[in-house]
Amino acid sequence: MSCSRTDCTMDTTTPSYDALTHTFTRLYHLQHLQAIASWDQAANMPPAGNEARAAAMAEMGALLHRMVTDPRLASQLDRAEAESLDEPQRANLREMRRQWRQSNALPEALVQRAVLVTSRCEHAWRSQRPANDWAGFLPNLREVLAIAREEAQALSQQLGLAPYDALMDRFEPGMTAARIDAVFGDLRRWLPGLIRQVIDKQSRETVVPARGPFPVAAQRQLCERVIRMLGFDFDAGRLDVSTHPFCGGVPEDVRMTTRFRDDEFLGSLMGTIHETGHGRYEQNRPREWLGQPLSESRSMAIHESQSLSFEMQLGSHPGFIAQLAPLLTEAFGTQPAFEPDNLHRLVTRVKPGLIRVEADEVTYPAHVLVRYEIERALIAGDIEADDIPALWNAKVQELLGLDTRGNFKDGPMQDVHWPSGMFGYFPCYSLGAMYAAQWFAAMRRVTPELDARISRGDFAPVFDWLREHIWHPASRWTTDELARRASGEALNPGHFQAHLRTRYLPTPAAA
Amino acid sequence: MSCSRTDCTMDTTTPSYDALTHTFTRLYHLQHLQAIASWDQAANMPPAGNEARAAAMAEMGALLHRMVTDPRLASQLDRAEAESLDEPQRANLREMRRQWRQSNALPEALVQRAVLVTSRCEHAWRSQRPANDWAGFLPNLREVLAIAREEAQALSQQLGLAPYDALMDRFEPGMTAARIDAVFGDLRRWLPGLIRQVIDKQSRETVVPARGPFPVAAQRQLCERVIRMLGFDFDAGRLDVSTHPFCGGVPEDVRMTTRFRDDEFLGSLMGTIHETGHGRYEQNRPREWLGQPLSESRSMAIHESQSLSFEMQLGSHPGFIAQLAPLLTEAFGTQPAFEPDNLHRLVTRVKPGLIRVEADEVTYPAHVLVRYEIERALIAGDIEADDIPALWNAKVQELLGLDTRGNFKDGPMQDVHWPSGMFGYFPCYSLGAMYAAQWFAAMRRVTPELDARISRGDFAPVFDWLREHIWHPASRWTTDELARRASGEALNPGHFQAHLRTRYLPTPAAA
Repeated sequence: MSCSRTDCTMDTTTPSYDALTHTFTRLYHLQHLQAIASWDQAANMPPAGNEARAAAMAEMGALLHRMVTDPRLASQLDRAEAESLDEPQRANLREMRRQWRQSNALPEALVQRAVLVTSRCEHAWRSQRPANDWAGFLPNLREVLAIAREEAQALSQQLGLAPYDALMDRFEPGMTAARIDAVFGDLRRWLPGLIRQVIDKQSRETVVPARGPFPVAAQRQLCERVIRMLGFDFDAGRLDVSTHPFCGGVPEDVRMTTRFRDDEFLGSLMGTIHETGHGRYEQNRPREWLGQPLSESRSMAIHESQSLSFEMQLGSHPGFIAQLAPLLTEAFGTQPAFEPDNLHRLVTRVKPGLIRVEADEVTYPAHVLVRYEIERALIAGDIEADDIPALWNAKVQELLGLDTRGNFKDGPMQDVHWPSGMFGYFPCYSLGAMYAAQWFAAMRRVTPELDARISRGDFAPVFDWLREHIWHPASRWTTDELARRASGEALNPGHFQAHLRTRYLPTPAAA
Repeated sequence: MSCSRTDCTMDTTTPSYDALTHTFTRLYHLQHLQAIASWDQAANMPPAGNEARAAAMAEMGALLHRMVTDPRLASQLDRAEAESLDEPQRANLREMRRQWRQSNALPEALVQRAVLVTSRCEHAWRSQRPANDWAGFLPNLREVLAIAREEAQALSQQLGLAPYDALMDRFEPGMTAARIDAVFGDLRRWLPGLIRQVIDKQSRETVVPARGPFPVAAQRQLCERVIRMLGFDFDAGRLDVSTHPFCGGVPEDVRMTTRFRDDEFLGSLMGTIHETGHGRYEQNRPREWLGQPLSESRSMAIHESQSLSFEMQLGSHPGFIAQLAPLLTEAFGTQPAFEPDNLHRLVTRVKPGLIRVEADEVTYPAHVLVRYEIERALIAGDIEADDIPALWNAKVQELLGLDTRGNFKDGPMQDVHWPSGMFGYFPCYSLGAMYAAQWFAAMRRVTPELDARISRGDFAPVFDWLREHIWHPASRWTTDELARRASGEALNPGHFQAHLRTRYLPTPAAA
């Protein structure tokens, strides 16, 4: 469908649509170089290369922005609406318009100010965080917040959405704060009790910790083996090392990263399984549509639902853990910790902590609640940046029972999102966890023997379902429609609650 | 001098020149992404990533071509000539015009046909070469030759140069076939005799070969150590592995590659020293001019003079070899082969062979003579592609005493240059060897104790001289002027002949 210059002539009945597909294919090709250079920056680039790389990336960013804000696109989008398009083409046109709106909604001057203010804040934050320097951070954060509010206002008017919804729309199109309020309000009611119950139950269990060192070469080999087991195509991707693990590259050449330390291996292994979920989504975007917006991943929550389907639903499944156990023994030698039941207890250990990215599956949503409630009030103007620490402490105290007073670096300064102006992103993490539980509930309806097959090392029902219902549809439907077609209903957080109860508080009969 | 958008206003007296510097800075930034993606393609990219990468590179190539052929540049170049420029600015303008001429000399349709024909020929050659399939290769090569002749005619008319000179101008601006005929004609008279004398002399010497295996990890560590010793800045560059070693990346982030096999280490080590010469040239291009054509390397022969200064002049110097010997012992254990005199005999062993890239310093120019004489006649229309094998065999027989009949893969099919249409490149290799000898002769005039200092492991006089005379001037002068300012004379191949005689046929007193 994405037609190349040579075989697509202008005498069809869809000249404007065709012109648009050409433009988006060109953008896709140029973004390829941006994606590879960005991966290289994290995985390879020596320190002195940074300034020239930043200049190159900025030049490319400006060039792509000029292409997307070309005034001709506006009239082509309008004319294409009247052309005779089939259903996927119409969906593609819808996504083209969405991208165009996002890129054209903000005045150029505001975009430039935002880049300046967030770069300054984020750059300073990198040294202020380890120094626990809230006082130094605050003035920059105030400026970022002012810009974010301005962006929210401008986007709100252009997109006809409420201010916070307009910010969230960049990451999770179609989602509204009203829906999240309902979903997270419910979560808030049952989560703290569940956390207490799980901790109480686990306090009566014995868990043998794994004993290191775990040589990095053996860890790398183990990770590659598990990634292959999970169906990642190494002919079209790589695993490398970077400070902050991520999944980048392009769908034809997916670049995942991890990090290793030799006194611990589970973090790296489970992190790699997480990235493999992102990676397989990317590798399985619809081939025939690559280059067009229809082929792009649906949203950040849906992307996160893939990484969490891999890490939490499948990767932490007792049947999967039983498959993993002998591989650990091969990699690091025999030890009591690798006995499957013990290993599962290790992987599913729940322990409230201060750091979101280190949180377990059960306490993670509490971290998201804290952030969502604060950033929502910030954008609404109900609170100011100065109010964050007190609120942070109260909420973490209430939800996780931990004191964060005076500890800014492991409190409101721990994430890159606010210093870089990414307000509206945090909810996606928990929405992703909820969608992942919803997908597995749907899989179990189609394949009642799913758990038994996972325990036999047969993951095909998982991959086949995800390919058909999530990966291949990509952006063909809106998120709600995608969820309905996949699972018979839009987002239903009940599946996540049920999943946590089943895994962490099984009834004696089910245990 | 390369001014950024913000600090350069249009109310100076050089508005056209300033506009040009902006355009070239933009090109530089975008070429950065192209260079990194191109290195990645050779060093990292998994096989299935190739098609998307090729499309991305083609898109970027087309975009850069449109920028350089923008009609506004023609008038800006003309108007800038009349503006008040200082001497380096004027040199920069000269190089801008040269690049503009190169990009604008060929009609778009011919450029596109050339890409098609050479891609097809090179792609097929990759499997035809190992299959020794000259008959399959020939029809494609005929087409490439036809295109090259057409390009030579078009360039010849546009640039006012003879056809072969016009092709060569892409790699070695200012050089003419008439000068090369004189230089290579002379070379042809003394080289075969010298080769025979050296082989005769070496046949009476005992050389102990190094005994493997040479573990790859130890080789890599050794290479990195030697590269550091040679002053390469690892904060602004890397060493990786690729099938065909090269030096790529950008001046702020130089990416060198090598390849390892565990039964042999000298090829990789000397190859890495070679690339380090290219790498230091790139790392030491004038900082304040980066982004502008004045900062670019002078020519391919001058670039090759740097890699050969490192590999042959310095790296194969008995004093350098004596420094290397203990490092080999550290890397691979003690063995008789690593005794410095023996090691020097190993490194400087002369043995006629069929393959150019494996040739030693003495027989290498014979390989270049064969290619130059044939490609010159091909472009002149004196011979056709069908005539190559017979001529090849006759010349290799005459210059190296080897029979190549029926062996196309190690004969005229061994190099990528002709299948990819790079006629006019081969002379640069030997011109580079000649310039390198000329530079070291000049260094010895400035620093008479040069050899003693090299033997003490003090390479500063070499690096300082190259930095001042070659690296920092970059493209400020024409090649002849650069050579005169550096060494007091334009290209003088006598230094190369003297170097070979001194190293390979020392008189008893000097030995």
